[in-house]
Amino acid sequence: MGWPVEGWTLGEISGIVGGVESGGVGTQYLRPVPVDAADPEGVAFAESAAFLEIARDSGVGAVLIPPDAEYDRPCVRVPAPRLAFLALLSAYADRRPAALGVAETAIVSPDAVLEPGVTMGPGCVIGPGCRVGGGTVLGPHVTLVEDVRIGARCRIHAGTVIGADGFGFFWDGARHVKIPQVGGVLIGDDVEIGANCCIDRATCGDTMIGSGTKIDNLVQIGHNSRIGNHVVIAGCTAIAGSVTLGDGVVIGGLTAVSDHVNIGPGARIGGMTGVTKDVTEAGDYFGIPARPAREHMRILALTNRLRGLFDRVDRIEGSKQDRLD
Amino acid sequence: MGWPVEGWTLGEISGIVGGVESGGVGTQYLRPVPVDAADPEGVAFAESAAFLEIARDSGVGAVLIPPDAEYDRPCVRVPAPRLAFLALLSAYADRRPAALGVAETAIVSPDAVLEPGVTMGPGCVIGPGCRVGGGTVLGPHVTLVEDVRIGARCRIHAGTVIGADGFGFFWDGARHVKIPQVGGVLIGDDVEIGANCCIDRATCGDTMIGSGTKIDNLVQIGHNSRIGNHVVIAGCTAIAGSVTLGDGVVIGGLTAVSDHVNIGPGARIGGMTGVTKDVTEAGDYFGIPARPAREHMRILALTNRLRGLFDRVDRIEGSKQDRLD
Amino acid sequence: MGWPVEGWTLGEISGIVGGVESGGVGTQYLRPVPVDAADPEGVAFAESAAFLEIARDSGVGAVLIPPDAEYDRPCVRVPAPRLAFLALLSAYADRRPAALGVAETAIVSPDAVLEPGVTMGPGCVIGPGCRVGGGTVLGPHVTLVEDVRIGARCRIHAGTVIGADGFGFFWDGARHVKIPQVGGVLIGDDVEIGANCCIDRATCGDTMIGSGTKIDNLVQIGHNSRIGNHVVIAGCTAIAGSVTLGDGVVIGGLTAVSDHVNIGPGARIGGMTGVTKDVTEAGDYFGIPARPAREHMRILALTNRLRGLFDRVDRIEGSKQDRLD
Repeated sequence: MGWPVEGWTLGEISGIVGGVESGGVGTQYLRPVPVDAADPEGVAFAESAAFLEIARDSGVGAVLIPPDAEYDRPCVRVPAPRLAFLALLSAYADRRPAALGVAETAIVSPDAVLEPGVTMGPGCVIGPGCRVGGGTVLGPHVTLVEDVRIGARCRIHAGTVIGADGFGFFWDGARHVKIPQVGGVLIGDDVEIGANCCIDRATCGDTMIGSGTKIDNLVQIGHNSRIGNHVVIAGCTAIAGSVTLGDGVVIGGLTAVSDHVNIGPGARIGGMTGVTKDVTEAGDYFGIPARPAREHMRILALTNRLRGLFDRVDRIEGSKQDRLD
Repeated sequence: MGWPVEGWTLGEISGIVGGVESGGVGTQYLRPVPVDAADPEGVAFAESAAFLEIARDSGVGAVLIPPDAEYDRPCVRVPAPRLAFLALLSAYADRRPAALGVAETAIVSPDAVLEPGVTMGPGCVIGPGCRVGGGTVLGPHVTLVEDVRIGARCRIHAGTVIGADGFGFFWDGARHVKIPQVGGVLIGDDVEIGANCCIDRATCGDTMIGSGTKIDNLVQIGHNSRIGNHVVIAGCTAIAGSVTLGDGVVIGGLTAVSDHVNIGPGARIGGMTGVTKDVTEAGDYFGIPARPAREHMRILALTNRLRGLFDRVDRIEGSKQDRLD
Repeated sequence: MGWPVEGWTLGEISGIVGGVESGGVGTQYLRPVPVDAADPEGVAFAESAAFLEIARDSGVGAVLIPPDAEYDRPCVRVPAPRLAFLALLSAYADRRPAALGVAETAIVSPDAVLEPGVTMGPGCVIGPGCRVGGGTVLGPHVTLVEDVRIGARCRIHAGTVIGADGFGFFWDGARHVKIPQVGGVLIGDDVEIGANCCIDRATCGDTMIGSGTKIDNLVQIGHNSRIGNHVVIAGCTAIAGSVTLGDGVVIGGLTAVSDHVNIGPGARIGGMTGVTKDVTEAGDYFGIPARPAREHMRILALTNRLRGLFDRVDRIEGSKQDRLD
């Protein structure tokens, strides 16, 4: 538990990232940090003159920098500092022993199937008909309600609920009658889902999330929706029921997609956008309701000039009036 | 646990839905499915020519169809296929034994009152002053913080928090001082609340949710709000404090209602709408801020024609200029 | 457990709020209530003629009123009725013994540090590298995933997840590759965070929340964001990654702030607003994208007059046509 106290020498860091170190002899670097951290034991990266300027001022211990950068404090010169920093983050993450296996306080239905190498945090609840693939990690308090099948190497963060009832009712003239929700959820491999999300079970059949898809926190996916592969959905977004998102779709934060809407592959939907109709062309979309970004921006620019347009019409009417006088 | 493996014959399905079967002799149908499911053991419904076309192509096992539809594969002819399918969903749901009673890992305050027939999933927390009505089902990890009274036959889905403090502070010139939140939450009968919602306790008195109301996932209801009967609130919507929603109000997803706003009975508020003032007339509302839908649509249509209006004013000015030359 | 059944006499209430009582002899008042509560054992406040009118009609037991108000039912006259009512709410809250200490079912990492006087509800999960300051209260099912340090006297409500991975990936041409998230979360003193929120850990370094800041339910704070002191964030708001909010910033509900955006001290961002660029001036902001409130309102007012503008241009073109005929 806890991070190790022994750090790296700058030479060891050079070895990890494939670079050439300069200075820092005798110092142990303990952790990767942002470039503005006043942390003499921290290592950051700086790929531009602006970042190098921040590094000079911040008191950060050492910096991964481009080969030809001017910098006279401890550093490692490396062709691609940002990628090198990713390598350092990975090396650092590997130093901390992660808790593995199924926590004692997880509650797993006797008929659930956990493949080898599943990790499950405290308080997880795995209901009947569920299956979790090898190498998948469920954070604390993740709930798989019923008939949820998750592939391999997924990460589901704390508090997320998968497989609760879809929101289906019909009005019988006196009350909303519940439509029984008896379907499941099918999630591919290498999917990441953030904290406190809700992925509803299908009415029948499956709500589906394709392999390689990444979902941020507090996202809702409605019943019977089908999310493609390698989709990205940012935080607090509401995907209603029976929505289809094609492969590689990107959805910004706090965006809504209405029920039964299809968004084709390659569409990129901005944040705070409301998609109410099918999107068939790749490209960027914005607005409530969603429009192609260029169109949306053009209309926004025109509304910004409305004051002037009113003034111009006032003047035209005035001069016309003048002529009539 | 798990769904039963024995299925229905098409004759048994006919009996359940009150129809007339055709074909499918010797087949066991195991589950209701969507019409596009390539599932030879699945039963779907198709009420239109378009759905029948999908059914012919999909490989679905059998279909509930209107009496006069042309269809030569296994089917059950029935006057209202969609309602018949609901009956089938219900029959299917009834075949799976639901977990009943209070889970061992639920933590119930000694002074809480649970009426007979309450079901509570693993990890539920029921605080002091709470009461739960007969037949109500709380999913895993539902928290009733304090002074929460829930009626009969409600369903609260996993991770929902009811009775946490309302968001009340006042600025004393130096800091935000907490206004103690000592009220409760009062929920009627037959209410359904989705997963990971937050229904705050009142400052004093009660936050109220009327009978028959249905709330989707990730919805917040602020302190002292009063939600009527048979209200529907879609996912990710934020109802601020001291809001009143009349009976039968419908609120779309990702919508916000400002504090102290009253929305009268029969109003239907669209998705991604921001209600900042009282709504007194029934009807549809859209926009930020919310306006009657017809007005909102008209303004939206006019902004779409702004480019043309600018061009027309350009031309008028040009011709005027011509006359002056 | 439960509220005490013995109440206050009106004289005792006068003592608590520093006022002068009138009537109500022999009655025990049991609880503070809203002014429209038909509760003869309830005490409300009424600071205006309109509220006094409500009090006369509602059947509320007694009312805190201004010294010179006309009111002939049981009351306590006091210079500032609203502040007096806060004192009464506090006195009432103090009468209920709060559960103190760490619940038996909380799961605390052996290396976590809990300062004296921490309260933790059932099912809390405290991961490695965490520290919780004295007097801080964590509601049920709060999860501190890893490397979360919280100051003194904070309140974190049920179901909130602090320290889950930030949403960081890069596309390598074939798939989204996870950027390891190895940073922490640093929270000051006297911070309140609502239920079911998500505060992500930093990629490296810390996501920070300043002292005295108050956050409502279902709010997301992205990785590496830095929230100042005494900030207020209303419910369902999405703060993306690497955002900076200055001291005293106020953010309305269902609002989004894009990643890397800085909002300076004293800015007040309305509800359902989308902040996509830095905000450097204090003042009010609204709209998607956010604009100064005055500018936003002016444009909104002009769009409301668009129908008339189209008509005016129609008329100008018509009369021009007339002249040409």
